[in-house]
Amino acid sequence: MRTKVHFEGRRKELLLKIWDLFIKNGYENTTLSVILQRLSLSKGVFYHYFSSKEECADSAIELMVNQCIAELLKEDLHDAEADRKLVHMILGTIHFFHGSRKQEELIDAPENMIFHHKLMVALTKQMAPVYAETIDQGISEGRFHLPRPLETAEMLLTLANFYLDIHLFKWDPKTMPAKVQAFEENMELLLGAQKGMFSFLHSISGEE
Amino acid sequence: MRTKVHFEGRRKELLLKIWDLFIKNGYENTTLSVILQRLSLSKGVFYHYFSSKEECADSAIELMVNQCIAELLKEDLHDAEADRKLVHMILGTIHFFHGSRKQEELIDAPENMIFHHKLMVALTKQMAPVYAETIDQGISEGRFHLPRPLETAEMLLTLANFYLDIHLFKWDPKTMPAKVQAFEENMELLLGAQKGMFSFLHSISGEE
Repeated sequence: MRTKVHFEGRRKELLLKIWDLFIKNGYENTTLSVILQRLSLSKGVFYHYFSSKEECADSAIELMVNQCIAELLKEDLHDAEADRKLVHMILGTIHFFHGSRKQEELIDAPENMIFHHKLMVALTKQMAPVYAETIDQGISEGRFHLPRPLETAEMLLTLANFYLDIHLFKWDPKTMPAKVQAFEENMELLLGAQKGMFSFLHSISGEE
Repeated sequence: MRTKVHFEGRRKELLLKIWDLFIKNGYENTTLSVILQRLSLSKGVFYHYFSSKEECADSAIELMVNQCIAELLKEDLHDAEADRKLVHMILGTIHFFHGSRKQEELIDAPENMIFHHKLMVALTKQMAPVYAETIDQGISEGRFHLPRPLETAEMLLTLANFYLDIHLFKWDPKTMPAKVQAFEENMELLLGAQKGMFSFLHSISGEE
């Protein structure tokens, strides 16, 4: 048991360093030999913890998304209404991954396209059950009215992570306010929520 | 003028061959030197038509999506109602790009991830105005009721191309019927259409 705890702890430590390396260096540019050199690891030690570069990238992303979720749930919002919790989660996630302009630039750089893509997929899949639970709460509170909380959570996350990504689609910046506004309105529609409940978003998109 | 027509014709011919090559060979594996060799081109001739591998991939995808749109619009549906036209476009696009099991496997293979990704982005962006026009028609017919046809078209296409992609998200196949059903219901909701108007989709997903 002691050994297992030690293994997991060391693996996590390596994953955090690998995350930084991928972000700073670009996923494509970070070959296995770059990882070994920068982390001062032998091949044998690397393969003790990971089966491939791709597996360690997937695990690093999973870990960071879980850290983001833990951060969001840590804050004392137990008594908050479902719509306030959803707003908090959307803004908190943006802050966690795009908090610094520098990190944002690195995540959005073309040489990180596959990595960015993996991150968006992981965010959508891992966040969806957390969103769905909050949507369930909103249904009990009579604020939301919809038949499929999990699938609707997945769709809202897909729209937020893919559709609203100006770099992925190379959207014209002038068209973004209309997209954000349409997202808000459609989010209200899909959740069966009151009109105007999520009109918080276009105020932040204007700030950027 | 003659020369320009000739240039465009030859470029198009090359793009169709390059599309096949990317699909069969994988985007990552198809280096510039593979392209030159397979198409029996000199570097000079290649750069006469294209500025880079990425540019010729983007152009090949743009061309194929436009061919798909032309194919869809060619059929005599001028008198059809908007909802029938939308159904025709969704099914026609699936057929065009995933018509043969072999082409589907090739597009979805991991070594085509960036290419697949570019294709999904192009399909969403280039198809959206065509969808939006049909949605406008549905509004005039009193079948649809929504304020933002273009953005809603973009969102529906994002959901169809990204969210419903079992390979991209590595969704559990058992969860797909619920996702397709939720997509149908949410499509009706977003278009302000009558319930059941788009319940055609889960019948095809069952067939696969």
